[in-house]
Amino acid sequence: MSLLVVGSVAYDGITTPHGKCDRVLGGAGTYVSLSASFFTEVSLVGVVGEDFAPEDEAVLQEHNIDLRGLERAPGKTFYWAGEYSQNMNERTTHVTDLNVFEHFDPKVPEFYRDAPYLFLANIHPTLQRNVYRQISGPRFVGGDTMNFWIEGTLSELRETIKDWDFILINDGEARQLSGEYNLRRAAKAIQQMGPTTVVIKRGEFGAVLFRPEGYFVAPGFLLESVFDPTGAGDCFAGGFMGYLTEQGVTDLGQATPPQLRKAMIYGSVLGSFCCQQFGVGQLREIDRADIEERFEEFRRFTEF
Amino acid sequence: MSLLVVGSVAYDGITTPHGKCDRVLGGAGTYVSLSASFFTEVSLVGVVGEDFAPEDEAVLQEHNIDLRGLERAPGKTFYWAGEYSQNMNERTTHVTDLNVFEHFDPKVPEFYRDAPYLFLANIHPTLQRNVYRQISGPRFVGGDTMNFWIEGTLSELRETIKDWDFILINDGEARQLSGEYNLRRAAKAIQQMGPTTVVIKRGEFGAVLFRPEGYFVAPGFLLESVFDPTGAGDCFAGGFMGYLTEQGVTDLGQATPPQLRKAMIYGSVLGSFCCQQFGVGQLREIDRADIEERFEEFRRFTEF
Repeated sequence: MSLLVVGSVAYDGITTPHGKCDRVLGGAGTYVSLSASFFTEVSLVGVVGEDFAPEDEAVLQEHNIDLRGLERAPGKTFYWAGEYSQNMNERTTHVTDLNVFEHFDPKVPEFYRDAPYLFLANIHPTLQRNVYRQISGPRFVGGDTMNFWIEGTLSELRETIKDWDFILINDGEARQLSGEYNLRRAAKAIQQMGPTTVVIKRGEFGAVLFRPEGYFVAPGFLLESVFDPTGAGDCFAGGFMGYLTEQGVTDLGQATPPQLRKAMIYGSVLGSFCCQQFGVGQLREIDRADIEERFEEFRRFTEF
Repeated sequence: MSLLVVGSVAYDGITTPHGKCDRVLGGAGTYVSLSASFFTEVSLVGVVGEDFAPEDEAVLQEHNIDLRGLERAPGKTFYWAGEYSQNMNERTTHVTDLNVFEHFDPKVPEFYRDAPYLFLANIHPTLQRNVYRQISGPRFVGGDTMNFWIEGTLSELRETIKDWDFILINDGEARQLSGEYNLRRAAKAIQQMGPTTVVIKRGEFGAVLFRPEGYFVAPGFLLESVFDPTGAGDCFAGGFMGYLTEQGVTDLGQATPPQLRKAMIYGSVLGSFCCQQFGVGQLREIDRADIEERFEEFRRFTEF
């Protein structure tokens, strides 16, 4: 089984109270793909510029990510720079240079068009829909979005998520999209828009899964030090989708509660590792055994 | 086994987006006692004024709370009035009339002086210490505090909590008391001040138990509607202490991990019920079977 990921590949400049780094490999597509790669084969569709370094491409290749759909366009790679507040709970964006990403119109190569698993990372909802339509009936499609699209392109977003089985969204965005403050009500309203599986991320407090048959609360992992939270939500997505792909869950409606709950915990595990170093640093150091060990730690601190 | 609770008994005026009520029975001592009463016998030491109504006394008596230590002083009962913001996450205090509480100097009646379980709800740390010293070696003592005492009477507070086995504190206060932003580090610093069992409350996100041997994360209950959060933290304390008293845990150091984890969940259960109506309204309607049912619901939405 193989997961098709569509999303940004970028260079990030990150400042946290722990330090500063410039032009490290980032982008939602990168984080989702690397995280999912611990569970399944991954193909990444995205775009980079002429400045995209061979050593960064090598990071993706080391994880066996199929890059035949990673377009290389004239110009520079998408660049983002931002700074976290002292307590890491607020982030200020200093630079957003879309560069080659500005005219990105994802083309799914012919050989991916029967992909049974598709994850649409956070890009313009119309592009997400275009990708969806290039696939000959994906059997399990999920995606992410952000406040920017909810504010600026709500009708396109509503049209796009109608087709999704699963949406991943943070608490503030869920409230904004649904017009409901209470999370249970917000999730119910979003389920009526299309995706019957709704995962609401709550930052350091974890994430909640809402399904027609009930809900599941995954706590956040209590790190002794949060080094850099960039990409944690995307790593959650990668762990969640990656595990369900590995399990061969082609129809999300048929996923068992234990499968979905474990997917939530694997998502949380990957999200927690992500925060331990700048960028994808920690993802490069861990292996499946580390993931299983932290999975068991989640069990130890939640079981009663 | 019986739990001795020392704390305020008050009248509250509460405004939430759902409505308004004036002069409803409240106070930390009230909430802790009522919640603990579902598990064990409770004795309450506090003070009320001449205006304290027989029907409010009856609420405590219906729960078999021993009121021989509830002093009736000339003057009026402590009165607090406040208002919650639209999303319930912020609270503005409009009125704090200490009244008889201003000169409250708790006297523990002779017949309570060998109480094996003592919970010191949020009052001046020097008064908390005075109560502790009136007890002939309580075997299990816990307490609560607040930002006001951390800011104004830090050295008294540090002296007081040295004797405690257990401290219940919210996340902001834990950071303030320890000078550490990270919760694991904050808890470690507080453990070194005396109480080796530290419970950090995180509002709607639940609570975390820190012990020398490890930690446990209890999620918040996802209510469809939070009607009035006043007293939820005190109800957590009552459920936690009440269950451990029922279990006969006289030495907190010897409590087993399952006992402590269940105490955390019972605390969360009582805190969640508390939010469903104004004041103690919901606590008056539930029984032990309702508590057990919600306890099982916590298991259902956390097990994986």
